[in-house]
Amino acid sequence: MSNSTKIKNLRELMGQYELDGWLVPRADEHQGEYVAPYAERLYWSSGFDGSAGMAIILADKAAVFVDGRYTLQARNQVDASLFEIVHTADVSAGEWLAKNAAGKVIGFDPWLHTENEIKRYQQACAGAGTEFVALEGNLIDDVWLDQPGMPVDAAFAYGPRFAGLSSAEKREKLGQGMSSQGVDAAVLSNLDSIAWLLNIRGTDIPCTPVVLAFAVLHSDGAVDLFIDSAKVDDKLQEYLGADVHLHPYDGFEEYAPALKDKRVAYDPKTGPIQIRQTLEEVMAEVVPSDDVCLLPKACKNEVELNGMRVAHKRDGAALVEFLVWLYDRVQNHKVSELEASQQLYASREAKEHFRGVSFETISGAGPNGAIVHYRVAPESDRGIDPHEVYLLDSGGQYLDGTTDVTRTMVFNKPTSEQKDRFTRVLKGHIAIATAIFPKGTTGAALDVLARKSLWDAELDYQHGTGHGVGCYLCVHEGPQRIAKGMSLDVPLRPGMVVSNEPGYYKEGEYGIRIESLVIVKEHSPGFMCFETITCAPICRDLVDVSLLNDVEKTWFNEYHQWVAKTLPSYMQPELKRQVKDWLDKQTAAL
Amino acid sequence: MSNSTKIKNLRELMGQYELDGWLVPRADEHQGEYVAPYAERLYWSSGFDGSAGMAIILADKAAVFVDGRYTLQARNQVDASLFEIVHTADVSAGEWLAKNAAGKVIGFDPWLHTENEIKRYQQACAGAGTEFVALEGNLIDDVWLDQPGMPVDAAFAYGPRFAGLSSAEKREKLGQGMSSQGVDAAVLSNLDSIAWLLNIRGTDIPCTPVVLAFAVLHSDGAVDLFIDSAKVDDKLQEYLGADVHLHPYDGFEEYAPALKDKRVAYDPKTGPIQIRQTLEEVMAEVVPSDDVCLLPKACKNEVELNGMRVAHKRDGAALVEFLVWLYDRVQNHKVSELEASQQLYASREAKEHFRGVSFETISGAGPNGAIVHYRVAPESDRGIDPHEVYLLDSGGQYLDGTTDVTRTMVFNKPTSEQKDRFTRVLKGHIAIATAIFPKGTTGAALDVLARKSLWDAELDYQHGTGHGVGCYLCVHEGPQRIAKGMSLDVPLRPGMVVSNEPGYYKEGEYGIRIESLVIVKEHSPGFMCFETITCAPICRDLVDVSLLNDVEKTWFNEYHQWVAKTLPSYMQPELKRQVKDWLDKQTAAL
Repeated sequence: MSNSTKIKNLRELMGQYELDGWLVPRADEHQGEYVAPYAERLYWSSGFDGSAGMAIILADKAAVFVDGRYTLQARNQVDASLFEIVHTADVSAGEWLAKNAAGKVIGFDPWLHTENEIKRYQQACAGAGTEFVALEGNLIDDVWLDQPGMPVDAAFAYGPRFAGLSSAEKREKLGQGMSSQGVDAAVLSNLDSIAWLLNIRGTDIPCTPVVLAFAVLHSDGAVDLFIDSAKVDDKLQEYLGADVHLHPYDGFEEYAPALKDKRVAYDPKTGPIQIRQTLEEVMAEVVPSDDVCLLPKACKNEVELNGMRVAHKRDGAALVEFLVWLYDRVQNHKVSELEASQQLYASREAKEHFRGVSFETISGAGPNGAIVHYRVAPESDRGIDPHEVYLLDSGGQYLDGTTDVTRTMVFNKPTSEQKDRFTRVLKGHIAIATAIFPKGTTGAALDVLARKSLWDAELDYQHGTGHGVGCYLCVHEGPQRIAKGMSLDVPLRPGMVVSNEPGYYKEGEYGIRIESLVIVKEHSPGFMCFETITCAPICRDLVDVSLLNDVEKTWFNEYHQWVAKTLPSYMQPELKRQVKDWLDKQTAAL
Repeated sequence: MSNSTKIKNLRELMGQYELDGWLVPRADEHQGEYVAPYAERLYWSSGFDGSAGMAIILADKAAVFVDGRYTLQARNQVDASLFEIVHTADVSAGEWLAKNAAGKVIGFDPWLHTENEIKRYQQACAGAGTEFVALEGNLIDDVWLDQPGMPVDAAFAYGPRFAGLSSAEKREKLGQGMSSQGVDAAVLSNLDSIAWLLNIRGTDIPCTPVVLAFAVLHSDGAVDLFIDSAKVDDKLQEYLGADVHLHPYDGFEEYAPALKDKRVAYDPKTGPIQIRQTLEEVMAEVVPSDDVCLLPKACKNEVELNGMRVAHKRDGAALVEFLVWLYDRVQNHKVSELEASQQLYASREAKEHFRGVSFETISGAGPNGAIVHYRVAPESDRGIDPHEVYLLDSGGQYLDGTTDVTRTMVFNKPTSEQKDRFTRVLKGHIAIATAIFPKGTTGAALDVLARKSLWDAELDYQHGTGHGVGCYLCVHEGPQRIAKGMSLDVPLRPGMVVSNEPGYYKEGEYGIRIESLVIVKEHSPGFMCFETITCAPICRDLVDVSLLNDVEKTWFNEYHQWVAKTLPSYMQPELKRQVKDWLDKQTAAL
């Protein structure tokens, strides 16, 4: 079906429902970064496949809303005769609606939007008289004839060997906290929260080992779990235990009257507005609050942290084995960005506990490296020129941990500008890696340390310095982060994992980013610090040693000593000799 | 009258009004840092004279609430048999009320509390059933028999020679901005906003050259001004012009019906809740928003900035003249903290345009320097021991600018610990002074630069790094600042003035702070930087040169060259020779 036919059919259906417009978010019911194929409604209707965005389809016009990362991509993917491309930094969806849908009736699927999101639209349109109407069912699903079905893969147990704590322990502790707040139950819709709480994993969503489900956690530790029964075999049901009661995936509304008169926590930032409305309909008292799993999940226990540490050593070995192959290929043969990412996958796949990538690999040579969220695809694939800078951002899901690493490299002599920029990025990376900071410090407070050396040269990068990372869960996890800005800002706490990834991008020429993951830990009474767990060499050919001070030089050399000493035990025996020679050169002291 | 009699009389009056409690804030109607003597109700009733705090008096108990700066002082000043001292970081006034005044009726004066403040108490007590009742009049005033009257000093014109813009220009521009937001009028209650908007000054409040008044700014630029007519002589009335209509200071409620059906801006953070209630009673549409003068006042024009620059040179000369006297006194005679601050006053008083101090001088020798908000008083006064560290934080109000400077010094050889700490503070000070940062950066983002060198040694200071400063107005001015924390955080903009004052405090031993004021200015397209305008030597005897890098050493030497070159022209002719010799030694290159 052509895109114009899709939109035409949708508009006919809007007319039947007496709607002037329909909202098509990227999100599924769970507001995660990745969605299963059945939920790719934005991609199906507009052609845009970025990880964040929305379309609004009115009777006579339509628009796709994207942020700065995706304006170029949207322009390439979306038919401009059907959709206007709107950059949300210029015009928000709410502002666009206020201007283009004054006095109109806009329909939406209340499972795909959070309460806060709908409120934002309503506030933006308060003066314009736009009305927002929640529909049962989704109009896209009615016109999407070959829409894939919901995933039916089995969920599986993820026991204390990797999780560190039993689900019963987690639920008991959370339940006590809820009791002390006078909360009887909490509705959970974030898939990683449910997977963490119940110590289960699945394969429903790309890159993230979670299971499609909703859950209600009660203050006595019992759970009502809304999940396709095909995913839970007898063995898993026994593992979940008698306190976990199963319901159909779409059974929340039928179940909800059981919450009458209870005080029920609901997260208006991530929970579908349908849940809020259902709670109100059944006369539950809604307590708006953060997902109760958010903070305990982020503060990992020692078993999880040790798992993360080991996973990063295996991942580093895989990366280095790949890099030896890559250097040879680029310098002596030919290789494209896509071939490189395929070889990297093969290298990771050979490692224990590997379960897939944690996100789509960014393999960007030359100018492609300057596109911050570049995803290599056959149409943009280019050969890696031995005279260009090459940026590689990738990660793996291992049973014992999730990895995310970026290294930037050259295969020949870099320009002095490239060395200057790389070294400034490195100084920022080291400033975060070596930071000591008092308890209570937020990631926002630390952000400038990563940028100072670039700012000194009137340079900057237009993304955050660090995001949280889960343990065999989401590669982008909240609430911890290192970034400018004020909202959702929480103090860093021991056990949190965050990325440390300053960068620099020269449009049309090259991109630089150095990313390692770090664990927040106690440094001394009252103070905290980071432990870098990513174990992979940082391209020494790109370092301008004259820009480093003694502390920085020492850090760089000690980090490389650790990398050189650690990785060989994790290498494929048949590659060990060759890889070790390469690694020793790459990690030689500055 | 003894404090116990005061409280007894107040409790009797509470009984007559059927109240279980009464709120006694430090604030007057205008929520500034300083209040006139008539408004010192907290001091009168409790003995506590700090610049922030509150008392709550119930029938059977009472408490004084102070923040970390004032716990020691409150313990010294307040009768513990009458008042519990509560540290607001541990228990907020709202939390204390929820616990101690459940189901009770608490009275308050609606002119002395903002809407946000009362809402905070109500929210904290939502579960406790505490009721808050606004009274006409203030119970303290009824029992305070010798309460001083309102100030009656004349206001005076502060024309474009110093202000840079005429009041008419300011009002026209603000009015246009209001119109474009659909706002008809704005109620102003911040005294510095009114003084800035109307280009007038006064002497009603200690340390701050403002006039007690309220104002309503209309979108056509006209103003209704509520002010004691004794303050406005014919000449000033003519200066204000035909668009400024005078009303009695307490005439807002009588006037308010003129605002019926208008959209009226009101700042819930600083405006008395009485104004909000009055607006609602007369059927005005209240638009909650920041004081419209806040940002334009903070972004000073070139005339104001040049005034600030020159005032800082005169102030630096006065400070250096005093320091020459002080070093001689301490080393060869005897001098107390109080005598030092009196001599400093005399030195400033001899300078052109001086109009008084901008805050009470902090003159802290040895352990007194470690008390962050120490105010020298006869009971705490101590001799300045030539072997101790001495911290001096002071400022002047000059017609062309407001100053605020802290220098820390030794008169003999410091310990290596003192040098280490001082040098770390200095590195933080230089990091702010030399920072280059992109447009849109907030002070919160820069704060860590001032702390990093201390954090590296597991040290910190428990106050912000910088506050805004007005131009012949408040020495503490919003919204700009450099500090941790998220609320009220705004990007720094060209023309803002902020202090740069990292410190270190070793309780019971010494305090260190280095404070200069800086102007935010454009550095290059897209980037900003600071210009240091405080012109006074930084004690080189306390510097451990081995801890400074080249950039820091260069900054220090160039700053001292500028100080040495600049100050002599502003010195008293008869002191010039002697002072210049001393200054040349103090500013010799490291």
